[in-house]
Parts: sequence; structure tokens; C-alpha cells
Amino acid sequence: MTLGFGVVGTGAIGREHIKRITKTLTGADIVAVTDVNQELAEKTIGDLDLNANVYEDDSALLQDDNVQAVLVTSWGPAHESTVLKAIEAGKFVFVEKPLATTAEGCMRIVEAEQKHGKRLVQVGFMRRYDNGYRQMKQAIENNFIGEPLMVRCAHRNPEVGERYTLDMAILDTLIHEIDTLHWLVGDDYKSIQVTYPKKTSKALEHLRDPQIVTLETKSGIIIHAEIFVNCQFGYDIQCEVIGEEGIVKLPEVPTLEYRKDGVLGSGILQDWQNRFNDAFNNEFQDFIDSVRHKGEPQGPSSWDGYIAAVTGDAGVKAQKSEKVEPIELPDRPEFYQQKKSEEIV
Amino acid sequence: MTLGFGVVGTGAIGREHIKRITKTLTGADIVAVTDVNQELAEKTIGDLDLNANVYEDDSALLQDDNVQAVLVTSWGPAHESTVLKAIEAGKFVFVEKPLATTAEGCMRIVEAEQKHGKRLVQVGFMRRYDNGYRQMKQAIENNFIGEPLMVRCAHRNPEVGERYTLDMAILDTLIHEIDTLHWLVGDDYKSIQVTYPKKTSKALEHLRDPQIVTLETKSGIIIHAEIFVNCQFGYDIQCEVIGEEGIVKLPEVPTLEYRKDGVLGSGILQDWQNRFNDAFNNEFQDFIDSVRHKGEPQGPSSWDGYIAAVTGDAGVKAQKSEKVEPIELPDRPEFYQQKKSEEIV
Amino acid sequence: MTLGFGVVGTGAIGREHIKRITKTLTGADIVAVTDVNQELAEKTIGDLDLNANVYEDDSALLQDDNVQAVLVTSWGPAHESTVLKAIEAGKFVFVEKPLATTAEGCMRIVEAEQKHGKRLVQVGFMRRYDNGYRQMKQAIENNFIGEPLMVRCAHRNPEVGERYTLDMAILDTLIHEIDTLHWLVGDDYKSIQVTYPKKTSKALEHLRDPQIVTLETKSGIIIHAEIFVNCQFGYDIQCEVIGEEGIVKLPEVPTLEYRKDGVLGSGILQDWQNRFNDAFNNEFQDFIDSVRHKGEPQGPSSWDGYIAAVTGDAGVKAQKSEKVEPIELPDRPEFYQQKKSEEIV
Amino acid sequence: MTLGFGVVGTGAIGREHIKRITKTLTGADIVAVTDVNQELAEKTIGDLDLNANVYEDDSALLQDDNVQAVLVTSWGPAHESTVLKAIEAGKFVFVEKPLATTAEGCMRIVEAEQKHGKRLVQVGFMRRYDNGYRQMKQAIENNFIGEPLMVRCAHRNPEVGERYTLDMAILDTLIHEIDTLHWLVGDDYKSIQVTYPKKTSKALEHLRDPQIVTLETKSGIIIHAEIFVNCQFGYDIQCEVIGEEGIVKLPEVPTLEYRKDGVLGSGILQDWQNRFNDAFNNEFQDFIDSVRHKGEPQGPSSWDGYIAAVTGDAGVKAQKSEKVEPIELPDRPEFYQQKKSEEIV
Repeated sequence: MTLGFGVVGTGAIGREHIKRITKTLTGADIVAVTDVNQELAEKTIGDLDLNANVYEDDSALLQDDNVQAVLVTSWGPAHESTVLKAIEAGKFVFVEKPLATTAEGCMRIVEAEQKHGKRLVQVGFMRRYDNGYRQMKQAIENNFIGEPLMVRCAHRNPEVGERYTLDMAILDTLIHEIDTLHWLVGDDYKSIQVTYPKKTSKALEHLRDPQIVTLETKSGIIIHAEIFVNCQFGYDIQCEVIGEEGIVKLPEVPTLEYRKDGVLGSGILQDWQNRFNDAFNNEFQDFIDSVRHKGEPQGPSSWDGYIAAVTGDAGVKAQKSEKVEPIELPDRPEFYQQKKSEEIV
Repeated sequence: MTLGFGVVGTGAIGREHIKRITKTLTGADIVAVTDVNQELAEKTIGDLDLNANVYEDDSALLQDDNVQAVLVTSWGPAHESTVLKAIEAGKFVFVEKPLATTAEGCMRIVEAEQKHGKRLVQVGFMRRYDNGYRQMKQAIENNFIGEPLMVRCAHRNPEVGERYTLDMAILDTLIHEIDTLHWLVGDDYKSIQVTYPKKTSKALEHLRDPQIVTLETKSGIIIHAEIFVNCQFGYDIQCEVIGEEGIVKLPEVPTLEYRKDGVLGSGILQDWQNRFNDAFNNEFQDFIDSVRHKGEPQGPSSWDGYIAAVTGDAGVKAQKSEKVEPIELPDRPEFYQQKKSEEIV
Repeated sequence: MTLGFGVVGTGAIGREHIKRITKTLTGADIVAVTDVNQELAEKTIGDLDLNANVYEDDSALLQDDNVQAVLVTSWGPAHESTVLKAIEAGKFVFVEKPLATTAEGCMRIVEAEQKHGKRLVQVGFMRRYDNGYRQMKQAIENNFIGEPLMVRCAHRNPEVGERYTLDMAILDTLIHEIDTLHWLVGDDYKSIQVTYPKKTSKALEHLRDPQIVTLETKSGIIIHAEIFVNCQFGYDIQCEVIGEEGIVKLPEVPTLEYRKDGVLGSGILQDWQNRFNDAFNNEFQDFIDSVRHKGEPQGPSSWDGYIAAVTGDAGVKAQKSEKVEPIELPDRPEFYQQKKSEEIV
Repeated sequence: MTLGFGVVGTGAIGREHIKRITKTLTGADIVAVTDVNQELAEKTIGDLDLNANVYEDDSALLQDDNVQAVLVTSWGPAHESTVLKAIEAGKFVFVEKPLATTAEGCMRIVEAEQKHGKRLVQVGFMRRYDNGYRQMKQAIENNFIGEPLMVRCAHRNPEVGERYTLDMAILDTLIHEIDTLHWLVGDDYKSIQVTYPKKTSKALEHLRDPQIVTLETKSGIIIHAEIFVNCQFGYDIQCEVIGEEGIVKLPEVPTLEYRKDGVLGSGILQDWQNRFNDAFNNEFQDFIDSVRHKGEPQGPSSWDGYIAAVTGDAGVKAQKSEKVEPIELPDRPEFYQQKKSEEIV
């Protein structure tokens, strides 16, 4: 039986996911949609040729028995409320980041889900499903490099526009590293610091760019993450884990190797959409398959959403204080223990 | 509306494709199956949880109105007959290689299809759908390296068993290069020669391994293809096109880059299944999409199947004669003119 | 006319340099030697088949008119005194690092040299003569990547023994990066900080390893330098400069690329001697040539030796305080202005 | 004691070598020169500031007792006569390629040298002294890839002028591969064939370019060598040996790795002078050192010069016949047996 999705929020990203579910992935269908803009919800039905009911709000949608899972792609501030209602209704949830806009909101979801008694919620952090990161995770789990000691990574975009504000460097850009890296090294964060190198003349007046974020984990792993959103040359995601016995590095995106005009070269992507396309598909397909065949999602959990929120808040604070800011995280509940990747895949 | 497939041949490869269609791809379903082993056909229905009719043979299956496309995965000698019947019935065909076991058989299909008046048949050459080859094709079409002059490629397997005979090096191994390379450089073959370097001691008594195949195209491009099926170190597909102004090379399969034990390394695949997995999916999805939305397949055609058969025959002859053997190909009919890749994708 | 060298200190490194001068380089000869161990000095004459006078101390050696340049390879605490005497005598000096064991001592040399009126002294920092660093320097000078903003580098050794103490990580290991990086980015240091990631279990009890050193320059460039002297896998020097418009990276040491046993690999050096062999030769030859043909050395100056001393001291302090320690450097005197690399080479 | 060189031929290449000997290498000096253009010989003395006698011809020069070794850099047709006279006089000889312009001439030298009783002559094939080829040679000797079975190599120049004729592709360009490859795989050639791919439009009217040369060795190794002297993109030397258990490949020339403008790239050399500079130095230094300390040269021998001549002749014949041309080589005399590279270095 296919998994019936109810979609809350039919804006650009909601439509992307709807197309993914109906045209690329298998095992799921869209059975209901809603949007604060009712007309947009109606229009989505027609545009994407869906056989789905339109509801006036998330509460109404959740009463539809055909809705087994909710896809939350409304705007951020609305996420918490919908997710809590969905848990109340015992429905599975795939929620785009952020899980909630505050750490407290995330914690309310974490508590509601634990009270429900089994995992219902997955947060849309897709990098864990990227094949390169997966290979790194497995190598680390297999002790190929011994204990991880340091991580060096970079998140580079060619340029950003006027609306990109300083805190977005943490909350929209680094947020992916925040989620991926603690998973990768199997540890929790202890503190975060932001330092500002010389500013590039390519950045707009209001922005400090690049930034270097230093995260330390409870066991003492130090992570240096460069955020450079006006690097000019391309969209470039780098990650390298240095362990006691060796180093593993995220593979470069494979492109043609060429020789021409005195250059031995290959291409660097110019936009992020192409970089993690497979990861998006893997992520969603895994959600569908896990829910259908294992009865619960296995990807990034509410707890991971909570970690991201707490770490993101500390990061924004660190951007202002330019000091080491503690990341106060309770111990990970038994309920949310990470599984080894081989138990999952 | 989804595309209804009737499957002729439910052995290993048939089942692989059935799983692909039902579990990974979208827009198609299995509605009918048949196999010379009727029990196997029945069992497939159960094993793969299909909602499909079982027919006693291809003729019966073709009469089912729900069958819009036929997937031919029977053994090679049976292909021609099924494909001809399918064309007769006006059904679309996805046929695993070979299109037919003889060049004459392929030509009969070519003629039947032209008589039918539009393309119905696609042959299962998946490499054209590999992302690396696609990038090469586009670079060449965009004149990035000027006119192609030479090609160097290699098809390496770690080892082969007793049942791998000399002619299989052409008909099963090189056949992929045969199809891919004339498409890649946009030219037709003129001759083929096989030379035998010193034999590896790792090959079994009855086999000559490695072999070097030299193909020449009508415009004079020279292709050197190494076939080395006991190379020990991995499954390794290489391809490099040298043009008037530069060179493009198939990217290596992306794997972790590591530093350990004095080695800066990355991994080489050990088996072929993982190498072209995406290509298999792309290939089949393109067949489904093209048939549904454009009314005809756009991938490798009957004519390409015919080229492969003629070239393969000449290659086997060349293995014995150790001389330059002509490849006698009529001009490509208008009906089968290649489209530029941007017209397709 | 060849340049007559008087060697002060005929221990291991002194002998290495003597061999280099007599057997590999051109334009110079050894005309005099001395050592606190007079017997060793005598023995060196015989062992290396030199036609040179043996003196009882540096003062005596400096009175030999055939000594035009002094090679100072005694132990560190003796350097300052010999260099000052040589300047007094108006002789050229090639002194192995450190220039002097204290910043004050270095400053005394700087002042004496300025008083003398032209450059006499070169300090043995050979990395600036490595071909890879040279290419980086030229790219930066040619504005290939715009203004440098950040630097990431690593200095990794497979392992160190009992005698390697914490401060040696700064004074013996990082000292090369300290000299190279300010030259590379054309800026002076402002502060230094040392942080300690999780310690590797491969390091001996008394050592903290790895360490991460953060250097900031006056214009705000942030440098992260990893020191990891028990990394196990090899001797590995990495350096990457991130600029406003692009990135340049030190090339890997070229070794065979191979495919074997499932690995696409190349080798990593196991010891440092081979890494900078060409740089050592280039460095010394440049000293000889510059002195002979331009009348003064052009490599790392007394001022650079002073920078290294001040920065090294601050680094050792930072190892203890774990705080950001200021690096108090007066403005670079006109006398020691860097020349563009094209003016030199 | 330094090795006294007498130079026969003070044109461009002669002067290059004189500078190398006097300014870069150690252990040798120029004591005598001659040239058919006596004025040029005189001028060379002044230009290069040599303390050497000028003789009217090679015979006179050979009578100078200070001449221990002769550097033959006259034009090709004069080589044989000078080399024979030098052997007669019992002097060491470093002769630029060709050893003699005919195979018969080379054989006369081989016979004279054997009659003399020990090796005196080294031919100027420098590639064997390139660090990359050396690593390949050692890997092969250490059985790292098992028995060599195939070789793929390429010799590419950006462009050539009007005076570059078809046979020069063999006698000036491929000649380096001819010498290097039989040494590399430790085997002798059996046959050679030249095939012409589609001609590049960048080549001048009179030239066929690219060419593919197929060499087969006595044990059956097949070598494909691409000669492409108008490849546009750079000076590019490639070599890959495919063995029973793995592959080794000549390292790329190390240059900066950069990221800029959407390209992850590094540079390709534009001219050959820089490519083998170290090899030229190593070659000559080895000649000097071997003669001084072992009493005979160890590099490419008269026999290697003979092999090059015979193979070159067959190659030029093959360019015309477009057929497989035999390479008729007697067995290598005991006198000229190759030593393992570790015995040499």
C-alpha cells in the first residue's frame, strides 16, 4: 500500500517535494493539501495534476483518514504547531527545517513524540543521505581512521543577495553542517565560536563574509567550518575528518576531466540545487520506505532538530559576542539513540 | 496514465527490471508476464507481489490490451521473434541486448519498424545514460575539444570464470563500448581489428586476455579499446576522447579520498553492478517518459542494435583473423538520425 | 671567483651543508672550519676530503681572509654571538634557525646589521625556496585569487620520540610555517592562539597532540595551522590560501599514480628529508649566487629571524595560557622591505 | 679531481650543456672546445667565461691530456666520426642523440667500444633520469604490477612550425619514447607500425598529425604511442604501464591546484624545456659521477643508441608503408646487459 501524504504548505519547496513524491519516488502519493493561501492550494492540485483533497487548514487535513503522513513545508514559524497536532493525531511527519523556530518549541515536539511512544517525525536534513557523507560515516564507524580528532569543512557559495543577513550564515547555511557533523563524528557539541577574517570586498556592506565557526564536541573534537557565501568561484562543499590513523575527505563532485588551453581541469558546480539532488531523493525515499516497512522514520529526528535549534541559537549569539559560547544540551534520550549506519541502510 | 508493461522472460535480469519498474521508477507498472518456464512466471508474480496476468507465451501476452510496452528479457535467441511480433502488434519494446543474435535478424526488425512508421523499439544500452558519458557527449557537441580524432578506452574486470569465452570479450564486454563510442563521436565504424598483447598469467588456459581492439570510423577517428577481464585490481571503465583542441575524459567514480598508511588513495569498484546503477535507472525512466509524453522512445534504436550486431560479428571475425576486418554498414536511414543530446534531455 | 665559506659547527647538519656546498652546488668552497669539539672539526676535514683550515674558534676563523661567508651550524645558543662577530667583521652569514634563541638576541643582530649598512645575513628557512610555495607566492602577487583572507595549513609527521616536547611543536615544527606564511601573504602577525583538540592515543604521555594554532595578521587574515606529529600515515605538508576570488593550494608531492588491489592511489612521503631537498639546494644556491652577483643575500633576513623568534615566544606562551596572545612586532624597517618574487628570481 | 671535458660543437645545445656543467653541476670542468665554426668556439670561451683551450678540430682536441671526456654536441652527421676517434683515444664520451645517423654507424661504435673493453659512451637520452619514469621503473622491477603487458603513452606538443617534417615525428619526437620504453619494460622491440587518425585541421598542409605508433616487443608487450605535435593545449607527456596485477602511471607535473571561475584546475606546461630540466641535470651529473667513481658511464649506452637508430629507421619506413615493419635487432651483447636500477642509483 502506498503512503498517503497530506501537504501543509504548497509554496515553492512544497511543490518541489510534491513533484519528487509523485514523479521520482515510489511508494507514496499526495492525498490532501492545504495552504494559508487557499487559492494556491487549489491551484497546486491543478498545476501538478493531483488527485487530492484541499483542506482549509492543517487541523482539517489531519482528520482525513487517508493522510498517513504529513509533509510540513509551510513557513518556519508555523512548523511547531502543525507538527504537534500531527503527533497528537498519531501521523508521521516529514518537516522541512527548522523543526521549530525556537529551542523550546523543538523541545515541546521532542516531549510530545516521546510521550506518543515511538518516532513519528523526520526533519529535512538531506546531507546525511549524500553518498559522499555516507562513505565518510561508514569509514569512521568501521574505525578506518581511528578516533576522529578534528574536522575541517567549508560551505561556499558564489554570491548572495541583499536579503542574506548575518544570522542566515548560521541558521540557513551552516545549519546543514551543524546537523551533519555531530552525526558524522557521533558526538554532541559543547561550544561554538565565530571569528571573522578580513572581509572580502565582494560582500555587500551589511554582511561579514567569510566567517569561521569553531565547534567543539563533548569529547574534544574541534571542528573548523568556513562559511564563505561570496567566494565567486562556485558552490563548493568541503569536509575532511582527521583521525588518529588517517584522514577521510568528501569526494569532489565528479565532472569531466579535461585538458585545454594549458589547463588540466574539471568543473565546479555553480548552484546548490544540483549538488544534493540525489540526497534529496534518497532522504525522501528512505522516509517513505522506513515508515512503510519499519513503522517509523530513521532519518534526522526531532532530537536532531532540537540540537540544530540550540546550536543555531548559540551560533547567532557567538556571531555577536565573538566569544566561545556554550552549547547546553541535555544528554541524548535513550529514545533517540543513533543507530549505526549499517543498521539503517 | 501509467505505462503497462508486459514482461517476456522472468529470469534474473527480467526480475531486476521488474523491481526497478515497480520500486524505483515512476509512471509504469507490470501488467502481464510470460516465460518459457511457466512456473517461473507464476512464481515471479508471487515473489515480487505483482498484480499481473500470466500468459503462456509472448503472442498471448501481446493480445492483452493493458500491455502497452513489452520488456524483452528472454534469452537472446528468442528476442527477434518477440520484437517482430510486438512491432506487428504496434506495441513499444524495451529489449535487452542483443536486439537479435544475427545482423540479418536486426535488419528484419529495422525494416519492420520503419514499415510501421514510427519508432517503437529501444535496446538496453545503458551507458549513454551514464552521467559521465553524457558530459562527454555534450562537451563534444558543444565543440569544446574541436573535432574528435582519437579515442582511448578500457573495459577492465577483476576476473572472469570458466564460461567466459573469447568471443564474449566482443559480444558481451566490448559491446557496450561498441554502442557508446559511435554515439559519442557521432560517426559510423569502418573497420575493426583485434590484437593480442602478451597474455596475463591470471587468465584461464582457453582465453586470450588482454585484447586490444582498434576501431576506425568512416571519417578516420581511431579508437583503441583495451579489454582486460582478469585485471585483478577492480572494475574499471576508462574513456578519453582526444580532439583537435583538447581532451575530455570520463570522470573517475567518486569515492572517499583518504590518507592512510603512506597512501593517498581512493577506492576502485569491484563489481559492475554498482558502476552503472544510475544509468540503468535513467535509461528505463527515459524510455517510460519518452513513450508516455513524446509517443516514441529516444534511446538506442533498432538501428543501433543493428550496428552493434554487424560490428560484433566483424569483431569476432577479427579475433580469429587478426586482420583488419571491414564493417559494412549501409548509410543510417533518415528514420534513425541521431538527435543532439539537448534535443533529448 | 668562488665564495669561500667558513663553517662554525661541524655536527650532523653542518656536515650536510658542507656536502651540499662541495658536491651539489656550484660557486662556493669550504675554506675553514671550527667546532667546540676540535677533534670533530679535524675529522670533518678528513671525512669530507676538504682543503680547509681548522680554527680553534669562530673569532679565529673570522680572521681568515679567505673566509667570505660564514655558515653557522653550531648549536642554537651559540648562534647570536657568532653572527654578531661575523657582522662586525663584515662577512656574509648563512645561519641555521634559530637566528638567536631570544627575540632580544635577534634584535641585537638586526640592529648590528642595519648599522653595518647592508644585508649580510640569511636565515635557513628553506620553504620559501620550495617550488610549490613559490608558485603560490607568485599567484598571490599576480592577484590570481584577489586579496588573501584565510589560510589553512597542516604540518604532519608520522610520529615523534620521547625527546619531542610540547614547545618543540612551535619552535621546531611550526617555525617553518611561521616564517613561510607571513611571507606568502605579505603581512605581519598580530596574535597567536593554540587550541588542543582531543588528544590522539598514539602520542606519548607528556605531549598534547594534535594542536591547532590560529594566527591572525595585522590586516585580519586568519591562519589555521594544524600541527599533528603522530599522525601515523606520513609526512604531509598542506597549505591552502583562500582569497576573494579563488583558492590556491600547495601541490601534492608527485608520485606514481597506481591502480592495484581496489585502490587508485599514490604515495605519501614517510620522512621530511626528501620533501624539501630541492628547496634546500635552491636556498643555498641562491645565497651563494646573490652574495656573489648582487653583493647581498635575498632570502629570509635577520628581520625574518626576529619575527620567527617573537612569534615563537608568543606561541609557546599561548600553548600554556590557551588564550589569544598578542604578537608585538614593530613596523618592518625600510631596510628589510620584502621584494616581489619576480625581482628576486 | 674534477672531470675535464672537451666540447665538440658549441652551438645552442653545446652551450646549454657547458652552462650546466659549469654552473649547476659539480665535479667537472670545461678544459677544451672546438667547433667547425672556429669563431664561434672562440666566442663561447668569452661568453661563458671559460678557462679552456680552443682547438681546430676534434682530433686536435682529443690529444689534449686534460680532456678526459668528450661532449659531442656537433650536428648529427658528425657524431659518429668524433665518437669513434674518442674511443680510439680511450676517452669517455657523452654524445647527444643521435649516436650516429645510421644504424650501421651506431654498430661501428658498438663494435669499437666492445673492442676497447669497457664502456666509454653515454647517449643523451635524459628521460630515464626523470623522477617519474624512475619511480615507474622501480615499481616494475619490484614486481608491483606483475609482468607488463601493455603500455599507453602520448607525446604532445602545442604546435610545430614549417620545418617539422613527417619523419621528425619518429626521429626527433618519438625517439625519446623509443629509448625509454624498452628500458622501462626491460624488453626489446620486435616490430613497429604507424597509423594515421583523422588529421587535425591545426596541422600544416605537409604534415600528418596526430600519428599512432604501435610497437611490439619480443615477449609480446604492445605499446601504443600517440604523437600529436599540434595538440594546442600544452606540452604533455603521458605514460602508463598495464601489468598483470595493476597499473602504474607517470605522475602529472606538479603545479598549483586552484579553484577559480568554476574550475578546479592545475596548469599544463607550454614548453618542453621545463619538463625535463631536472632529468637533464641528473643525467649529466650521473655521467660525471659514474665516470669519476666507477670508471664507466651507466646511462644509455651505445647499444641503446643502436636500438634507437634501428627502431627509428623501421619507424620511418612504417610511416610510409603503413604496414607492420619488423625491427631486426641482434641479441643484446653481454657487454651491454642492463643493470637493475637499484644497482645504479
